[in-house]
Amino acid sequence: MAAADAIPGYLYGSGEVSPSPVSEDDLALLKQTVLFGDDDERSLRMAGEVLGDQVEDVLDVWYGFVASHPHLVRYFAGPDGAPIDDYLARVRARFGQWIHDLCERPWDRAWLDYQEEIALRHTPAKKNQTDGVEAPGLIPLRYMVAFVYPITATVRDFLAKKGHSEAEVDAMHHAWFKAVTLSVALWSRPYAGAEW
Amino acid sequence: MAAADAIPGYLYGSGEVSPSPVSEDDLALLKQTVLFGDDDERSLRMAGEVLGDQVEDVLDVWYGFVASHPHLVRYFAGPDGAPIDDYLARVRARFGQWIHDLCERPWDRAWLDYQEEIALRHTPAKKNQTDGVEAPGLIPLRYMVAFVYPITATVRDFLAKKGHSEAEVDAMHHAWFKAVTLSVALWSRPYAGAEW
Repeated sequence: MAAADAIPGYLYGSGEVSPSPVSEDDLALLKQTVLFGDDDERSLRMAGEVLGDQVEDVLDVWYGFVASHPHLVRYFAGPDGAPIDDYLARVRARFGQWIHDLCERPWDRAWLDYQEEIALRHTPAKKNQTDGVEAPGLIPLRYMVAFVYPITATVRDFLAKKGHSEAEVDAMHHAWFKAVTLSVALWSRPYAGAEW
Repeated sequence: MAAADAIPGYLYGSGEVSPSPVSEDDLALLKQTVLFGDDDERSLRMAGEVLGDQVEDVLDVWYGFVASHPHLVRYFAGPDGAPIDDYLARVRARFGQWIHDLCERPWDRAWLDYQEEIALRHTPAKKNQTDGVEAPGLIPLRYMVAFVYPITATVRDFLAKKGHSEAEVDAMHHAWFKAVTLSVALWSRPYAGAEW
């Protein structure tokens, strides 16, 4: 992950990331709630290997989905309503790195802290600041939750492209589904405050 | 659904349900975001038929999951920490009816209003009131989101039990996954207020 330095606004593991208020115990209980176990950890690593050189293709699908829905692409648009290409490109690079991080990183304190950083960047606390843009100041929580479906479903075809058995693809896909759901649960924290 | 009257605290379509602040336009955009189309509507109806006489078995799985996790069952426990059997039973009856409603009802104003009622019953606004219990006053948002996984994944085996083709089971399961994700997006509304 040596190239990570080149990703604009990507601060994983740096002193610029504030500590997450989410504890290791909270994370452990969330993992139980999405039934994420040791087998899933292995399957998610495998998914990372399978997706590794397909990340740009995955992003093409996700960006195509967002770009074709005005109610989604507007969160990347400036005051004139036109999508900000540079903003989209910067977010895209971090979104790709997120795939790597989700599959390849240990879910430790640094990972947990960075999930909070990602969460805040979707809310008025930090939206737009990283990229110095004047887009809407919030991605509504409902779309964060709703994205569990497209981000999960669209990945299966990519997981199946490297000759793994149906059972292996299923295992990778379930681990991915669990990991995405858990990520969105973490990203929902700033929206709910004490009710999180 | 004539038996619905017998379900304690089930107020679907009654004047006791407050209007949801969620608009039909909001719902339409959420459906787009989880890629829910006409095919899914048909597949979800079919899922309703398949699950119809298996609802108690599905609930056994879900309740077994909750009961075996202290961090989940505590939301059904009284001040002494012991699960309240009558409360669990009343919620279970409504949970079963929710499966029917999700698959069989039109997603119209009455449905939307009732999703808000369900949402509020997980938050301090209405938790415990319907059943007159003294359990914790909130189901944290993170567990609402996390439940997308178990509620989705556990249903596939039941969808496959009535001799449908693999493609039909897949279609029903994807429609179910989308519908559950959309439901949780709606249920997250009271937690986020203006940031929903």
